[in-house]
Amino acid sequence: MNNTATQKKAQPGLETLTHLVDADMKRVNQVIIDNMHSDVPLIPQLASHLVAAGGKRMRPMLTLASARLCGYHDGNLAVDMAACVEFIHTATLLHDDVVDESNLRRGQASANALFGNEASVLVGDFLFARAFVLMVKGGSLRVLDILAQASAVIAEGEVLQLSTANDTATTEQSYLDVITAKTAALFGAASQIGAVIAGRAPEDEMALRHYGLHLGTAFQLIDDVLDYSAHQATLGKTVGDDFRDGKITLPVIIAFAKGTEEEKIFWRRCLEDQNFEEGDLDRAQILIRKYNALEAAMDRAREYGQKAIDDLARFEDGPIKDAMIEAVEFCISRPY
Amino acid sequence: MNNTATQKKAQPGLETLTHLVDADMKRVNQVIIDNMHSDVPLIPQLASHLVAAGGKRMRPMLTLASARLCGYHDGNLAVDMAACVEFIHTATLLHDDVVDESNLRRGQASANALFGNEASVLVGDFLFARAFVLMVKGGSLRVLDILAQASAVIAEGEVLQLSTANDTATTEQSYLDVITAKTAALFGAASQIGAVIAGRAPEDEMALRHYGLHLGTAFQLIDDVLDYSAHQATLGKTVGDDFRDGKITLPVIIAFAKGTEEEKIFWRRCLEDQNFEEGDLDRAQILIRKYNALEAAMDRAREYGQKAIDDLARFEDGPIKDAMIEAVEFCISRPY
Repeated sequence: MNNTATQKKAQPGLETLTHLVDADMKRVNQVIIDNMHSDVPLIPQLASHLVAAGGKRMRPMLTLASARLCGYHDGNLAVDMAACVEFIHTATLLHDDVVDESNLRRGQASANALFGNEASVLVGDFLFARAFVLMVKGGSLRVLDILAQASAVIAEGEVLQLSTANDTATTEQSYLDVITAKTAALFGAASQIGAVIAGRAPEDEMALRHYGLHLGTAFQLIDDVLDYSAHQATLGKTVGDDFRDGKITLPVIIAFAKGTEEEKIFWRRCLEDQNFEEGDLDRAQILIRKYNALEAAMDRAREYGQKAIDDLARFEDGPIKDAMIEAVEFCISRPY
Repeated sequence: MNNTATQKKAQPGLETLTHLVDADMKRVNQVIIDNMHSDVPLIPQLASHLVAAGGKRMRPMLTLASARLCGYHDGNLAVDMAACVEFIHTATLLHDDVVDESNLRRGQASANALFGNEASVLVGDFLFARAFVLMVKGGSLRVLDILAQASAVIAEGEVLQLSTANDTATTEQSYLDVITAKTAALFGAASQIGAVIAGRAPEDEMALRHYGLHLGTAFQLIDDVLDYSAHQATLGKTVGDDFRDGKITLPVIIAFAKGTEEEKIFWRRCLEDQNFEEGDLDRAQILIRKYNALEAAMDRAREYGQKAIDDLARFEDGPIKDAMIEAVEFCISRPY
């Protein structure tokens, strides 16, 4: 292995990967715009609000990069299936924001805040269905299977998250189950289908699936760290959302486990009873720092990141592999 | 044509059809139970609440009946695809009840009332995704295409309904566009895939698609009539829901168009401003009767029902065709 997480650039970013798949991503964007069209004006209005807000576009890039890593070039199938992945992600974001009652997404007012919960639910359904129409057009039952299964697992993860919300007895394992399902599953599927599209052997498929799963887990661990540590302007969403929603993430699980009885009472009042007082978020952040819980969660993210990098070992060295490694390094060190 | 809507039985029912496909429907129910399983307990809990409540199961019966009419017998594919149709329908019901804030469904407390909106949205997503997993297992890209397209059209219809809600200027054509998309599309797809599964020619496919579309339109027209005329205990949902939600259905469009200026002011206050006073539902029902709007809407339903019966002309006479005709007659004369 020539590349490991220890050989970091000063500031790893997504730019290397973005640059390599730039032409294809432009085509992905066009496919997205073409397929969110509807004669019902509210649909493209709402969908384009979310699409225009941008986001990292990690998932479709993973499909394109994985296909490229597997020797696939210039075909339409990877572009179309990458668009499907982004559609599925966008549909889950719309439904998430309804479930979480979020008002901010990607630095802008969320769709539910602007257009109402009803429209967000229904346009999410529309995008999800359109993703399947596009997959059918692609004609690969294997890709359909992988993305349909991932979609079911994402929903399961979201329901599991609902069930663990407001429960300070949630274990680290339950938390990992939630983020594996709600986030890592789509990263894994997005990466795996790149190998499927390129017609590679099952071992290569599985290696890329694991790369995506590990990367996605690291990504979500850092997401949950940022919810307690980020600057709001950089993050593009409200800091402290998880705390106010009573979501039990790893920083909380660690700080709660190590906390005094009085601190546990504080956590229970906030997270279980949702009974907040002025200054509670500050206190939560102080307690999390007191027990080095953010650093511990970031260590976990780095472990998963290293696994993701190891998953790439079987593939040929080159610029695309380097960019996929740098994407991992970005995910575990990102400030947003 | 030996069979027309004019040769009615005294009280047409669904029993003839139900009886003919009974063995297959038992298998459909088992497939539904098997595929709504999840390790996250809330999912089967919520899903089985809705499934146990029953409902007419018209849509999966249409798939089974159409396949049978086309000479298909005893295979698993029709059973599995009928279950997919019911999953898609159940998912849309869960999301509908969130959008409409309904508290009653099939005579019981609705899932959102019992389990919350969040769980209803997410379990709907889960069932929808599982439907696609099951379709992929079936292996027919044609069936996948038809049901994916129908799913997108349903969501479009629901968004269009949101856009026309509270707007007394809604035309009859807009109303028909809404019900064609939100209801008839799945009836049409459910019937069409029966022919696809049986491997019949495109003309037979399209005839059954049209049968389903016409039947579904008639079904929804009567549904909207019942919202102003039914006995609540028989209907199994709250009478007057559409009125309170400001939904613009055909009875309202007719009564509004024929209404005096004072009556138009009444309709606008209720449906547009959602500003209700004691006795408003009674007054709405009186105005609707004054202009024979229910009878006019039922005439429309009968026209669509006759078209559905005509669509079956090309198929061989026999008990299954007779039952499909009786199903139409039931839909246009049903009290629930």
